[in-house]
Amino acid sequence: MKEVLPQFNSTFSIDCVVFGFDEGELKVLLIERNEEPFKDWCALPGNLVRVDESLDQSALRILKELTGLGDIFMEQFYTFGNVDRHPQGRVISIAYYALLRLGGDKALKPITSYAKKAFWKNISDLPKLAFDHQMIFEKGLEKIKRRIKHQPIAFELLPEKFTLTQLQNVYELIMGKKLDKRNFRKKMLSFGVLKELDEKQKGVSFRAATLYKFDRRKYAKLFGKEISF
Amino acid sequence: MKEVLPQFNSTFSIDCVVFGFDEGELKVLLIERNEEPFKDWCALPGNLVRVDESLDQSALRILKELTGLGDIFMEQFYTFGNVDRHPQGRVISIAYYALLRLGGDKALKPITSYAKKAFWKNISDLPKLAFDHQMIFEKGLEKIKRRIKHQPIAFELLPEKFTLTQLQNVYELIMGKKLDKRNFRKKMLSFGVLKELDEKQKGVSFRAATLYKFDRRKYAKLFGKEISF
Repeated sequence: MKEVLPQFNSTFSIDCVVFGFDEGELKVLLIERNEEPFKDWCALPGNLVRVDESLDQSALRILKELTGLGDIFMEQFYTFGNVDRHPQGRVISIAYYALLRLGGDKALKPITSYAKKAFWKNISDLPKLAFDHQMIFEKGLEKIKRRIKHQPIAFELLPEKFTLTQLQNVYELIMGKKLDKRNFRKKMLSFGVLKELDEKQKGVSFRAATLYKFDRRKYAKLFGKEISF
Repeated sequence: MKEVLPQFNSTFSIDCVVFGFDEGELKVLLIERNEEPFKDWCALPGNLVRVDESLDQSALRILKELTGLGDIFMEQFYTFGNVDRHPQGRVISIAYYALLRLGGDKALKPITSYAKKAFWKNISDLPKLAFDHQMIFEKGLEKIKRRIKHQPIAFELLPEKFTLTQLQNVYELIMGKKLDKRNFRKKMLSFGVLKELDEKQKGVSFRAATLYKFDRRKYAKLFGKEISF
């Protein structure tokens, strides 16, 4: 028999799908849960929304508490509401996603005891996840796949100066397929957000590639808008 | 002092932004509310989700009850969760949208007394709406503006056989701007979902235009995927 906690009769939570790009690998941020249900399971960082916070505020608060990460730009992408998705009652979950460039500065450390630890995991090597988090993860991945085709989100995953090959790698990793080099470059340059630098890649002996950075002003103008059609 | 009904402490609702295309006009489906709060106000069709139904099921049930419309393909697009969006407590709302071709066959008739009536209203002439429904409407419009650039949703708004001018009209109405005729045609034909018919527009004395229909098989293959890049 299923026991339903009264405070769970009908409520809502946030789950975060935070992607991190790290030297040619696409990773997702997970926690190890310290609370029932699904105690000791791996899960996306998520928790209940408080009555006095907006969904956007809640997403930031929850991510910070469970992983230590702050100042992350997250965007809502879907709300999951199957009747039986939570074993303790009716809980729908509003999912957010973010894309980060990983570096040594982003240490993970849960602030609350709700999570035992937080860690990055390569998306090709995910453990079994609590609740319907596998489905939430997949929908988040689908979302960034669609987004990256129309918005310059890839730039957020690269160092300030990058080669077109590095840029293409980000696209291929997210889209999960190889792209034609010539078409890719032509399309990318046509957006007008790339600035060619008078500088070559360092530490490469043979045919060092030209470095680019992106034009923040044009980028800001484009961001939030679609760039095709 | 704000009185908070206990059942409203924290719950969720559905609101539907249903767009209808009718001979050169883009309309949205509204109801006149028969219940507090916002009794007698115009609003998007919306109500609370029941504990035993998924969000998708709930959206269909609510739209049917408030407007009489059934068999509509609706898609979730955003969840609105500002703390004070509902005067009786914390209610977040999951918003769905749909696009319909209007015809005489789609009579509107509320099934429950929750709505006094349901009606179509031109989007350029909206009344003041209850709750944050103006914001929900605007986000829905923004959504279809983005969608129509990448997905063949416009076809759902046209008769089976249509001219390229009619197709362009749909795009211009949704995007809220004039499009270049030559570019538009070139792009549209490049998607490969249009079938040119051996048939001309009827009832036009001068330069009757060629009629097109869309290729359902190719359309089905494309639908749900992006068609640019």
